[in-house]
Amino acid sequence: MKLCRFTHQQFAEPVFGLIDESEMVSVLQEGAHLESLTREGSVQTLGESLPLTEVRLLSPVIPSKIVCIGRNYRDHAAELGNAMPDEPLLFLKPPSSVISHLEPILLPPVSNRVEHEGELGVVIGRRARRLAEDDDPLAYVLGYTCVNDVTARDIQRKDIQFTRGKSFDTFCPFGPFIVSGLDPRDLRVETRVNGATRQDARTSLLAFPVAEIVRYISHVMTLEPGDLIATGTPAGVGPLADGDVVEVEVKGIGTLCNGVRAIRDEG
Amino acid sequence: MKLCRFTHQQFAEPVFGLIDESEMVSVLQEGAHLESLTREGSVQTLGESLPLTEVRLLSPVIPSKIVCIGRNYRDHAAELGNAMPDEPLLFLKPPSSVISHLEPILLPPVSNRVEHEGELGVVIGRRARRLAEDDDPLAYVLGYTCVNDVTARDIQRKDIQFTRGKSFDTFCPFGPFIVSGLDPRDLRVETRVNGATRQDARTSLLAFPVAEIVRYISHVMTLEPGDLIATGTPAGVGPLADGDVVEVEVKGIGTLCNGVRAIRDEG
Repeated sequence: MKLCRFTHQQFAEPVFGLIDESEMVSVLQEGAHLESLTREGSVQTLGESLPLTEVRLLSPVIPSKIVCIGRNYRDHAAELGNAMPDEPLLFLKPPSSVISHLEPILLPPVSNRVEHEGELGVVIGRRARRLAEDDDPLAYVLGYTCVNDVTARDIQRKDIQFTRGKSFDTFCPFGPFIVSGLDPRDLRVETRVNGATRQDARTSLLAFPVAEIVRYISHVMTLEPGDLIATGTPAGVGPLADGDVVEVEVKGIGTLCNGVRAIRDEG
Repeated sequence: MKLCRFTHQQFAEPVFGLIDESEMVSVLQEGAHLESLTREGSVQTLGESLPLTEVRLLSPVIPSKIVCIGRNYRDHAAELGNAMPDEPLLFLKPPSSVISHLEPILLPPVSNRVEHEGELGVVIGRRARRLAEDDDPLAYVLGYTCVNDVTARDIQRKDIQFTRGKSFDTFCPFGPFIVSGLDPRDLRVETRVNGATRQDARTSLLAFPVAEIVRYISHVMTLEPGDLIATGTPAGVGPLADGDVVEVEVKGIGTLCNGVRAIRDEG
C-alpha cells in the first residue's frame, strides 16, 4: 500500500489517501486507524478517487515523537571523525520541525552551515513497548518513507548535544508517501542537491538494521502509532544554500523534494 | 488561577478544572482553550464543582514537546564537573515519558543510577515563534508547574547525548497543577526523597531566567500551547531506589509526588 495525507477543496479537513498504480488517490474511510492498517495490511476506501496531481500533500502522519539514530552508517561516522557507537545512539527532533513534501527548508540566521541528511524513515503503526525477543519488530511498522534529517552542523558541533542543531522549524521534511509491505533490509537511499547526487547508499549498510532499532527504542520509550524513526544517514552530507532544491529518494517509496530558503534575522 | 486536568466518574473524558481556595474543582467549559486562558487570565466554568480529593489528577496538559535546559544552575553544573554554557543548552524529552502526580517512576533494568532533578516547569499558552526584542515572553506562558527531570545518570554519561538517559517511560512526572499569574523570577524549588530535603534553591539563581529561555527557544522551534519547558535543576541531584517517594515542591504551586519502583528485566 502507498499512503498519503492531503488537503483538497472537497474536504474540510486533511484526509488520508491510498494511491494506486495509475496515481489516483482514494480517500480512506474515517474509521481507518493506523493500527488497523498495520494489522490488516489493507484498507477500506470511500468510493471517490482523485488524481494525485490535484491534491496538496501533507506530511503523511503527525508523529508524537521523532526518534533519530546517529552514526548508523560507518562511512558517515568516519567522514565526521566519529567512532561507531556500540549500541544505537538516540536523539529526538520535535514535531514542530516537520514540514511536508514541497514545503521550503528555512535556513536560520544563527547557522552558517545547514546540511542535508537523507535517510530511510520508519513509521510506527502499533504501540510498541519493551518488545520481547520473540516479538517481530517489523509487525509494529506501518511502512517506510523518506526523511531529510536537516542539521545545522556548526551548532551541533558547538553544543555537543545534537538537539538545537537538529530542531529548527522546517528541519524535518518527510514523505511524500508511506509505503507498506517493503523489506527494509536493502533499500537504496539517494540524496540529490539541484539534481547532483550527494549521498547514495543501501540500507544493507546500516550498522543497526530497522528491526533492531525498533526493538531497542521500544525498551527506552513506548513507540506510538504515527511515530517516526529516522534510521541514520550515509556518507556525503553537505551544505544547503538559499535557492537549492534537495531531494531524498528511497527506491520503491518515492522522492521527497524541498526547496531551501534563507530567512533574514528579524532580531 | 490554579488549573488541573482530571478524570472523574461524572465525565466520560478527562476534563480541565479550576481549583479554588477551598480546594473545590470547577470544570472548565469545553470551549476553554489554553490560548484564551492565557490571554484573558480568567475562565468560564460550568456550574458544578467537586472536592479536589475526589478527582484523579492527570498531567495538567499533554505537551507536543518537552524542552529542557541543561546546566542552568551554576552549583549543579559544578557538582557534575561541567562548565556553564554561554547560551541555554537545549535537550528534549519525549511525550511518552510523561506521568502524572502519584504515578510511579519506573527504574529501567539497563540503568544502575537513576536520579531525581526537581525543576520549575513553564507551560506555554500561546504559540510563540521567533519572539522579537519588544515581545514579552511571559505573555506566551499559561503558568508554572513542578517537573522532575528524571535521569539515568550512567546512561547519560555513556551516551554523551542526553536523549536516552532522559527519555525512558515515566521519566517526566509533572504537575499536579498549573498556576498562572506567578512571577517566575524568585520561586523556591525544593526536592525531597522520603521526606529528606535533597535539593533546595530559588529560581533567582537560574543562569538563564524564564523570560530569556522562552525567547531563546522560540528562535529555534515554534512553541505550541501546552508545550512544557523544564528550566534546569539546582545542586543536590541523587539516586532513586525501589520504594522511594520523591517530591518536587515549588512554593506557590504545589507538590508533585511520585513513588519509585524497579521493573524486572523481561528480556
